[in-house]
Amino acid sequence: MEVKAGKLLSQINIPSDLKKFKEEDLVEICKELRQYIIDVVSVNGGHFASSLGVVELTVALHYVMNTPYDRLVWDVGHQAYGHKILTDRRNVFHTNRIYGGISGFPKRSESEYDTFGVGHSSTSISAALGMAVASQLKGETDRQHVAIIGDGSMTAGMAFEALNHGGTEKSNLLVILNDNCMSIDPNVGALKDYLTNIAISKTYNKFRDDVSAVLTKISELGPNAHQIVKTIEKTIKGSLLHKSNFFEALNFRYFGPIDGHDVNNLVKVLNDLKDIPGPKLLHCVTVKGKGYALAEKDQTKWHSPGLFNKITGEIKKSTPKAIQGPKYQDVFGNTIVELAEKNEKILGVTPAMPSGCSLNIMMKAMPNRAFDVGIAEQHAVTFSAGLAAEGFIPFCNIYSSFMQRAYDQVIHDVALQKLPVVFCLDRAGIAGSDGPTHHGAYDLAYFRCIPNMVVSAPMNEEELRNLMYTAQLQNQGPFSIRYPRGNGVMPDWERPFQEIIIGKGRKICDGEDIAILSIGHIGNEAVKACLELNQEGYFPAHYDMRFAKPIDEQLLHEVFKKYKHIITVEDGCIIGGMGSAVLEFMADHNYTANVKRLGIPDRIIEHGEQPELWAECGYDAIAIIETVKSLGEAKITKELAG
Amino acid sequence: MEVKAGKLLSQINIPSDLKKFKEEDLVEICKELRQYIIDVVSVNGGHFASSLGVVELTVALHYVMNTPYDRLVWDVGHQAYGHKILTDRRNVFHTNRIYGGISGFPKRSESEYDTFGVGHSSTSISAALGMAVASQLKGETDRQHVAIIGDGSMTAGMAFEALNHGGTEKSNLLVILNDNCMSIDPNVGALKDYLTNIAISKTYNKFRDDVSAVLTKISELGPNAHQIVKTIEKTIKGSLLHKSNFFEALNFRYFGPIDGHDVNNLVKVLNDLKDIPGPKLLHCVTVKGKGYALAEKDQTKWHSPGLFNKITGEIKKSTPKAIQGPKYQDVFGNTIVELAEKNEKILGVTPAMPSGCSLNIMMKAMPNRAFDVGIAEQHAVTFSAGLAAEGFIPFCNIYSSFMQRAYDQVIHDVALQKLPVVFCLDRAGIAGSDGPTHHGAYDLAYFRCIPNMVVSAPMNEEELRNLMYTAQLQNQGPFSIRYPRGNGVMPDWERPFQEIIIGKGRKICDGEDIAILSIGHIGNEAVKACLELNQEGYFPAHYDMRFAKPIDEQLLHEVFKKYKHIITVEDGCIIGGMGSAVLEFMADHNYTANVKRLGIPDRIIEHGEQPELWAECGYDAIAIIETVKSLGEAKITKELAG
Repeated sequence: MEVKAGKLLSQINIPSDLKKFKEEDLVEICKELRQYIIDVVSVNGGHFASSLGVVELTVALHYVMNTPYDRLVWDVGHQAYGHKILTDRRNVFHTNRIYGGISGFPKRSESEYDTFGVGHSSTSISAALGMAVASQLKGETDRQHVAIIGDGSMTAGMAFEALNHGGTEKSNLLVILNDNCMSIDPNVGALKDYLTNIAISKTYNKFRDDVSAVLTKISELGPNAHQIVKTIEKTIKGSLLHKSNFFEALNFRYFGPIDGHDVNNLVKVLNDLKDIPGPKLLHCVTVKGKGYALAEKDQTKWHSPGLFNKITGEIKKSTPKAIQGPKYQDVFGNTIVELAEKNEKILGVTPAMPSGCSLNIMMKAMPNRAFDVGIAEQHAVTFSAGLAAEGFIPFCNIYSSFMQRAYDQVIHDVALQKLPVVFCLDRAGIAGSDGPTHHGAYDLAYFRCIPNMVVSAPMNEEELRNLMYTAQLQNQGPFSIRYPRGNGVMPDWERPFQEIIIGKGRKICDGEDIAILSIGHIGNEAVKACLELNQEGYFPAHYDMRFAKPIDEQLLHEVFKKYKHIITVEDGCIIGGMGSAVLEFMADHNYTANVKRLGIPDRIIEHGEQPELWAECGYDAIAIIETVKSLGEAKITKELAG
Repeated sequence: MEVKAGKLLSQINIPSDLKKFKEEDLVEICKELRQYIIDVVSVNGGHFASSLGVVELTVALHYVMNTPYDRLVWDVGHQAYGHKILTDRRNVFHTNRIYGGISGFPKRSESEYDTFGVGHSSTSISAALGMAVASQLKGETDRQHVAIIGDGSMTAGMAFEALNHGGTEKSNLLVILNDNCMSIDPNVGALKDYLTNIAISKTYNKFRDDVSAVLTKISELGPNAHQIVKTIEKTIKGSLLHKSNFFEALNFRYFGPIDGHDVNNLVKVLNDLKDIPGPKLLHCVTVKGKGYALAEKDQTKWHSPGLFNKITGEIKKSTPKAIQGPKYQDVFGNTIVELAEKNEKILGVTPAMPSGCSLNIMMKAMPNRAFDVGIAEQHAVTFSAGLAAEGFIPFCNIYSSFMQRAYDQVIHDVALQKLPVVFCLDRAGIAGSDGPTHHGAYDLAYFRCIPNMVVSAPMNEEELRNLMYTAQLQNQGPFSIRYPRGNGVMPDWERPFQEIIIGKGRKICDGEDIAILSIGHIGNEAVKACLELNQEGYFPAHYDMRFAKPIDEQLLHEVFKKYKHIITVEDGCIIGGMGSAVLEFMADHNYTANVKRLGIPDRIIEHGEQPELWAECGYDAIAIIETVKSLGEAKITKELAG
């Protein structure tokens, strides 16, 4: 749905249009931009509160900087809607996050104003530093390079790595710290406390002023005083006081904190900073959700609220298209509490995703046994390994695509030592409208090659519960459980726990000639396909493998002995995934069969609804049906048998 | 070779023996321990300078702490030889890093004193924090948890993530910063400059003293002065001055800097710190290589010098066992300079491994085009992506096992955006005596599943040069080149560049019935095997695949049409590797053949020489010969043909 922009905003297609306005118009432009975001997101969905929080910063940056010649790198990109609207995408903004529409994140292929694609956090300083060093090498001394990063993203190690390097480069880099005390959930950690302390008290600048004032007073005390003032000045200068700030310790010149919603002051400060060479950091204090009262009040809820009535703030419930159960994440969140009540060794760990993975349920029920460690996947895994080394069973919940951040820690700190950490990989498989940065496409492949690792995926809520139950029972080494974004299929999911023998799949239905081997929730598409196929006289068998590793060899012996055609189905990359495990088994045991692997093909899959993308990738029910039919034999056999 | 320990050291088998000595004996014990390390390492090899630098710290820690009840976590572990010798492993220390002997790193399965296995850097604070939180949950309030971490390791992001979390936990954690200004090469970055500044000037403590002295002087100035002192005191207290230190900003109590070679003062300080609850950091200044003059002078060279004459310091050259070329790393180091001289877009990036990967050659030749970014693999990759986004072609050189640290950045920041970063993965495959933490076992599997990624491995020096040449010519997207630790096979390696068509393998020899498909340097074992087999009347064909992705489909069509038996050989994990790519091709094209995959099996491979481990894993020349013979047909066919 297209939405009408305000009077001034409607005159702005690209930043050069914005520059034509006078500074006194900027407040009104901000107001219209904020309203436009509210108008579109309320009817279209998407991330909300983050972009509202940086409206003034966005306007000021495009007003002052010479974009796209000057480089803006938005960290994560949840906050870049204003940027998109001001950079030639207002007219397509209503297609945001929709299949075939524009991306919800900055993306190089979409616009020259999007200098660096984002989605995961904390990459912006590294990328902007790379650009700044590149400019330096090319002698483009007038080019500005700006990373805009939240205080949440600043907790990830790679942001620190970039500051540590950037502080020793002379290139022209400005880091804007967008300090709103929030990740998706409230930000945590020592740095956040430190920043809050600065922001609230404004002591850092005040201290400098106060010292100056006191020194003046001392000077007035008489002849001896002059010498003392000199001494104290020398002491202060010779001391680390000039590096008394966290960022100054890393050799960034620190400016702020300033009000991130005063657009005219932002313009002034940014203009000043343009002329200061070298690495520098501007600390802006903002309010996530600014200008929409409900969002300011409950920032986590309004991070990405879905559709809502912009007047009443009522969030619209999506109507389920089929029988569906709860969200998988809620099954996780409730089940871990249930298990932890019986097993005191169980702990919960999340890197800044308590509401995203529903560990917030445990954090509320057992606050001392569930840990939000900040946007810090690497630390989350090794911290879990430390807990496990002392006899605990941590359930470390990390989205599949974010687990890529902790791959070394999974191998080096957990698997090599065979420590009993349970990895729960939420958002595994196609993630939906967040798109390629968030698809959990690779985990089956990258976990399957790790020794000692159990790789499992439940087909439904009951299996998720039982895999979690089994994982804490076995307690022998790393155990991973992957499940997708969204809802399951079992309204009555709260069933008694049953242990699953590790590495055992299950037969869903017998059949002839063709066997479908699925893993995970996508197996429900195979169920749909089989029901449809049975109507048409095709009778493929269907097995729910449950484990990609160890793979059920007994089941596979049965399958390879009985079936000529095998179709593997997984919501994961086709290279190296469960289907490849089946091929490896086939080769190792000298079987021959026609094996057709369905999964995510070897290319980048853009954003869209999950079913749209499953269809595009060729492993939804329709694709499975077509694959079975293309094999051609099943029906004939059945007819002959009949 | 066993070495005799000194008079006191020979009485110490475990820390409780150490505790029986008086404090005044500790200096002598340190002397003996240092000498013992020199004596053993000079005849046995291993890491050297790091352990010499922490002799006093090691003795003091085991003297003061109640190990193993108290937990010591050594970061990286290069420095843990003294710890091993004092904890029941003096008698086996001569087997250090030898096949079947003890590990060169702390290892949980080896000793209860080794609380956490290490090898990669910067994990210690996370692990120790996990242990500290575990103790807190168990109510073990008397237990100490100590992470000993170098200033080099402190530059990695995960150390920061752990500090950021640790600063908000109340658990009993002591971080000892072993500040020697070194990684393997000199440490770099803003934090290092900052720490050096503290360590040299001792300004931090001095400042506190000076302020106090000045305030006293001001007080003496008369009646008005009293009020002014109060004001300035209030200003300072109310300010961030009490958090003016980097670590205090993260809510760690900071102590130091102190001399890390004064064992008696270390004992005193550690005893004091035991009683201070919560997160705290002790800054120790040490000298890497302390006590061995040559090592103090050239710390990089003496990090792991190999065997040497301990009197003269002469380092013994290893005698090559066969015809061999230069080290692969030196081929990389020289070739990148040669290419960069012709192509000004080429840059070099290493995360703290300039001498390990030989980028130091370029850093010397073109200092402004080669970057050591610190122990920061994540940043190294995204920084490279930033450079590539601006038109440069960065060669980002990261050891295979360390690339696991940057897996997300490779996917999210490079591959998704198809940026032309060339990844050079040194130490790919079995790494040798560094053992399981350092084996580059998984990269073929974990890179192969990434869209847009070229995955290649040269069989010799010339191919490495040509792949590097090709990578910068194509300039279309990410291009990875993996090669092993150690030497190649071509003494005359400096040949003119030739472009290799991406995805094209090459035939080494024709044959009958059996085809061997190898990738990378291990192909030379296949060559040896073929020579031997030919003598015995077996004539397998041999192909050097060169690319695991894109795989040479034309070549594979030829192979599958012609050969019944296929043996794949790779120095990488058998799950998901090049052999699996061959199986995927076979299934996709409906071929049938007997495919036997040789590679690293699905278990943890311990340390040893590369040939020992290739043999253990079953893919050296002998294993290939046996595999060919076991297939049984080739010889018969040849005889019939003859």
